[in-house]
Amino acid sequence: MRDLNKFFDHCSRRVDARLDALIPAENTPPARLYAALRWSVFAGGKRFRPALTLAAGRVFGAPEERLLSTAAAIEMIHTYSLIHDDLPAMDDDELRRGRATCHVKFDEATAILAGDQLQTLAFHAIANDAQLTESTRLKLIAELAEAAARMVDGQQLDLDAEGRRISLEDLEKIHRSKTGAMIRVAARAGALIAGAGDDELCAVTLYAEKLGLLFQITDDLLDVTQTTEVLGKTAGKDVTAEKATYPHFHGLAETRRLAAQVHAEAAESLKTIDKNTDILAALLDFILAREK
Amino acid sequence: MRDLNKFFDHCSRRVDARLDALIPAENTPPARLYAALRWSVFAGGKRFRPALTLAAGRVFGAPEERLLSTAAAIEMIHTYSLIHDDLPAMDDDELRRGRATCHVKFDEATAILAGDQLQTLAFHAIANDAQLTESTRLKLIAELAEAAARMVDGQQLDLDAEGRRISLEDLEKIHRSKTGAMIRVAARAGALIAGAGDDELCAVTLYAEKLGLLFQITDDLLDVTQTTEVLGKTAGKDVTAEKATYPHFHGLAETRRLAAQVHAEAAESLKTIDKNTDILAALLDFILAREK
Repeated sequence: MRDLNKFFDHCSRRVDARLDALIPAENTPPARLYAALRWSVFAGGKRFRPALTLAAGRVFGAPEERLLSTAAAIEMIHTYSLIHDDLPAMDDDELRRGRATCHVKFDEATAILAGDQLQTLAFHAIANDAQLTESTRLKLIAELAEAAARMVDGQQLDLDAEGRRISLEDLEKIHRSKTGAMIRVAARAGALIAGAGDDELCAVTLYAEKLGLLFQITDDLLDVTQTTEVLGKTAGKDVTAEKATYPHFHGLAETRRLAAQVHAEAAESLKTIDKNTDILAALLDFILAREK
Repeated sequence: MRDLNKFFDHCSRRVDARLDALIPAENTPPARLYAALRWSVFAGGKRFRPALTLAAGRVFGAPEERLLSTAAAIEMIHTYSLIHDDLPAMDDDELRRGRATCHVKFDEATAILAGDQLQTLAFHAIANDAQLTESTRLKLIAELAEAAARMVDGQQLDLDAEGRRISLEDLEKIHRSKTGAMIRVAARAGALIAGAGDDELCAVTLYAEKLGLLFQITDDLLDVTQTTEVLGKTAGKDVTAEKATYPHFHGLAETRRLAAQVHAEAAESLKTIDKNTDILAALLDFILAREK
């Protein structure tokens, strides 16, 4: 666990440095736009998705330098979705990672444009990453666009579900799209850049799909069990807004059992990879443990 | 002029068919999202930017089939910007091309997501266009991302300028970013796909930059001289909102003289191209004439 924290620190430092290089400086005109982008990008997030890209790339032997722009691009897509998700017309959140959301700190129009620009810069970053072959860049752009599209599908499904009773099946579909697709592509991107074989890519994909599911289950658990202070966002919001969650369907004990089961399935898929996958296993343990 | 109308009709039909193939069907879940996308994409626009891509490609000998996905992608980026620009937090427009804007017909959250998804689908379309070499696709994605980023810069500059007195220089900078960059890339994309030489690409770029400027000048003139009925949007809005426009700086007569001058400069740059550029000249004439 101490090693994993070191790994997270290392990833954050390197990914933040790459984000800093890829995003126009704060005083670049229009300065308000880039201040808003940077406010949201450098808000002290865990960089979980980029860390997953770096971890998967490391497992299959990619030099870290070749992974950084793609990892940063994935974080930019993730951050754009958070900025837009927080808007008054969407989730209407005023706090994110313990500080004011983009539209609260700046204004709604600027927040809309900051999200738009982050998406553009993400594709720009990969397209211009001279360390990767043209073929790899194109494959990454195609996969990232696919994942980003599924993410938006998931956000719309989530909106459509608000205030309505939905089935467990619908809930899982929302999660697979809204958060699962980006976690999946984060892991696949690392393996793709490393030149992993088809079977290896398949195993990493399975692992990442289970990891994404575990991420969502523990996210729901966290929301029930933790306080606003610890989370840095308004806890219990999902319950008060009567949003469907795993505890809502299964209760706490059964949801915890489900988390353990999904964790075991993901660990199983790692066993089919003939490499040292300790770092991917540690990420899995971290996500399971975070709700306690 | 009759020939140009035929060309526009031809372009609209072909580009609309490609857009229809690239955008998920209206009943694809989440159906509300794709209904919103299609509402805005198929709103009866002139398809000026895609027509420019097809025209430039034709001049340098590209088979039309190879231009269509890129032309459609450019229209998707343009449409995403219109959807977000119309939002209450931005220009707060209720009418666009004579009918309800996306957030009025659907809702704000859906309109935000529809714009987001259109941007994603644009990059997805080019990345997956198997008719182009990987190298060409990558170059197009890089250029389109560059232009889309400048467009958002321009929108922010425009927001920042609201209610403030700005210089003519600032006004031109806003236009070059907000509308100029996308018109520029539309023309360049056609030439790039056709494999135009460096000098040719340079001439097309100059032409497109002047065309973009002319587009904006005549847009300002149209806003002053035409009625809401003809425009399908609220006429005189820019003046009542005290937005800086060319007539605001120069008066009507001088603005018209400026339009003629910019038209002449663009026509001049076409002369350096050793191909039949009639179609590009006709587009130029069309933009000059549209304000009358």
